[in-house]
Amino acid sequence: MKRRSFLKGATVAGAAGAATLASSFPKPAISQNRMEWRMVTAWPKGLPGVGTSAQRLADNVTAMSDGRLTVKLYAAGELVPGLACFDAVSDGTAEMGHDASYYHLNKSEACAFFTAFPFGFTASEQTAWIHHGGGQQLWDELYAPFNLKGFIAGNTGTQMFGWFRKEINSVDDLKGLKFRTPGNTAKIMTKLGATIIQLPGGEIFPNLQSGALDAAEWIGPYNDLPFGLYQVAPYYYSPGFQEFSASLNLVVNKEKYDALPNDLQQIIKVAAQAGHDDMLAEATAGNGPALATLVQQHNVQLRRLPRDVLIAMGNATNEVLLELIDNADPMTKKVIDSYLGFREKVVPWSRVGEHAVYEARVLPFPHGKRV
Amino acid sequence: MKRRSFLKGATVAGAAGAATLASSFPKPAISQNRMEWRMVTAWPKGLPGVGTSAQRLADNVTAMSDGRLTVKLYAAGELVPGLACFDAVSDGTAEMGHDASYYHLNKSEACAFFTAFPFGFTASEQTAWIHHGGGQQLWDELYAPFNLKGFIAGNTGTQMFGWFRKEINSVDDLKGLKFRTPGNTAKIMTKLGATIIQLPGGEIFPNLQSGALDAAEWIGPYNDLPFGLYQVAPYYYSPGFQEFSASLNLVVNKEKYDALPNDLQQIIKVAAQAGHDDMLAEATAGNGPALATLVQQHNVQLRRLPRDVLIAMGNATNEVLLELIDNADPMTKKVIDSYLGFREKVVPWSRVGEHAVYEARVLPFPHGKRV
Repeated sequence: MKRRSFLKGATVAGAAGAATLASSFPKPAISQNRMEWRMVTAWPKGLPGVGTSAQRLADNVTAMSDGRLTVKLYAAGELVPGLACFDAVSDGTAEMGHDASYYHLNKSEACAFFTAFPFGFTASEQTAWIHHGGGQQLWDELYAPFNLKGFIAGNTGTQMFGWFRKEINSVDDLKGLKFRTPGNTAKIMTKLGATIIQLPGGEIFPNLQSGALDAAEWIGPYNDLPFGLYQVAPYYYSPGFQEFSASLNLVVNKEKYDALPNDLQQIIKVAAQAGHDDMLAEATAGNGPALATLVQQHNVQLRRLPRDVLIAMGNATNEVLLELIDNADPMTKKVIDSYLGFREKVVPWSRVGEHAVYEARVLPFPHGKRV
Repeated sequence: MKRRSFLKGATVAGAAGAATLASSFPKPAISQNRMEWRMVTAWPKGLPGVGTSAQRLADNVTAMSDGRLTVKLYAAGELVPGLACFDAVSDGTAEMGHDASYYHLNKSEACAFFTAFPFGFTASEQTAWIHHGGGQQLWDELYAPFNLKGFIAGNTGTQMFGWFRKEINSVDDLKGLKFRTPGNTAKIMTKLGATIIQLPGGEIFPNLQSGALDAAEWIGPYNDLPFGLYQVAPYYYSPGFQEFSASLNLVVNKEKYDALPNDLQQIIKVAAQAGHDDMLAEATAGNGPALATLVQQHNVQLRRLPRDVLIAMGNATNEVLLELIDNADPMTKKVIDSYLGFREKVVPWSRVGEHAVYEARVLPFPHGKRV
């Protein structure tokens, strides 16, 4: 689809879209002053959780503003390529984008920390850092020079480590492993001897099938089941050390956002925050049944990374982090400082809190019967 | 404060509140058709996390509607007592309430499952059940006869088990223990031999001090630090088997909600969902530093419940659950069936996912240095 065909007539929708409301509540005249905004996304059309939640976010803004700000979503490639959301919103080609900040490490290494860093934050820790730990202020500072305003607007929850053709029983099994993974995880796996191969999502399946790849990281059961990698790589490993959670974001052209009246700014902000809860809820609800289907119907071999392999991954993660710090610009240093400072405070609480209740859950006692 | 003084003149605020917007975006006339709604809450004024997040929820509705629906929050006791929110919103004394459904087991035992049931759901599991697991539909069915619409609108995160004057080293140490806890947890602890004493929050401190209480459940470090129980009960136990998380809710008078135009309905709904994320984020950010202060400055003795004690608690929880099922009305049976059915699917995923990443985090390797 050509960009030009979307650009014409896409700013003001006019009076045509005014909805009829079967309500006795008197409302102001809304037949004028309507805008249509484009939300470009990094997601294939209808991608479960990630894409479906982005659509609900767009629809919520439209509904809450009663159509004064109507948001139309474009799947990856419809208006701009999936990885071009950042630039497209920055330069005003689109007013909004929904993607992941860590796709843009070429803009700043600091972008990683607003999505996921290996051995980093769970979903609730990430949103705590953003909203009540200083993260949002740093994000605003990082994105302002790009004419962007970023909002945390979704989370996949904990990811799996990935799909493997063979079992991983020791650190030696990682040596020479032809592995598909991006970003900082690629650097970490390189330190452990893996051969990193970068491929678009659509090329993973045939390359695993042919043996050009030995393994590939994807998301979690809910997304992985329809993706079908279990057919060519039967070993499914956790934990996903590389993404304890992955936060996705809404970006808005800052100039256009700043020009909005307060109510529409607040509608966007609150829709994004609800979107974080919404996407995580869909993924959490979807992962359980998908995992059961993978194991019970498709004979997927669920495996845990051995302890010594995880420790090697932790050490390699630390090396990558220290190199990042050594080479960081002042903005990136500030972000890492804040992230690690928050981590020092939140980790002891999570150990005493949520980690401890998960441990209590697996003790041997019955858990009710069906009604 | 008397109820009457709030009821007069509290429906339409008139033109006085129209905000001046420093924006070039043209907006419709809003000088008429403004409403003021009362949100009664179960929380003392400014209660960290729980109360502060309820205030932000109210402010978000006001801001997103540009004051067309202005929400004024009342702390517990200001308009109605904290535990009267359900009835007050049901009968229209207030249009909205912010409290916990499990305060209302006298209306239906099913109310427990929309806040917390012992050994139940973490925060992300609970919101997954509500939004993508059938929970909301059952909640609508449960609350409609009370003229209420319920929304999940907050979460405290994982709670602590509570404050104890003496250590708990065995199941025998629970026998005769004078313990303050409400609801299903009281039934469970009674089965284990504890003597349950019901007291309002404000009376816990002097009763622990005098020895009339041996122990009391409260919330988590962020709320417990200012509450001060550490001064009279130094042992602080986790895990909070009774509340893996506790979801708090917004309730809206159903008749009044149904009469709203679609945009204001959506604004309330999305504000509630964002409120869930917001409260959990504040609690998660606050718990870490508060825990450090309790342990390092106030010499609090952090303890874990022994394995055999937790197993006894699990068995007692199961007995209480089976008794609930045996005596349940059809609506409660449906809720429990849905809750347990969802639990069967989500628990294996959480074990492979988030529980596994918490386990990876505590392995011995360094975690960066400060920038």
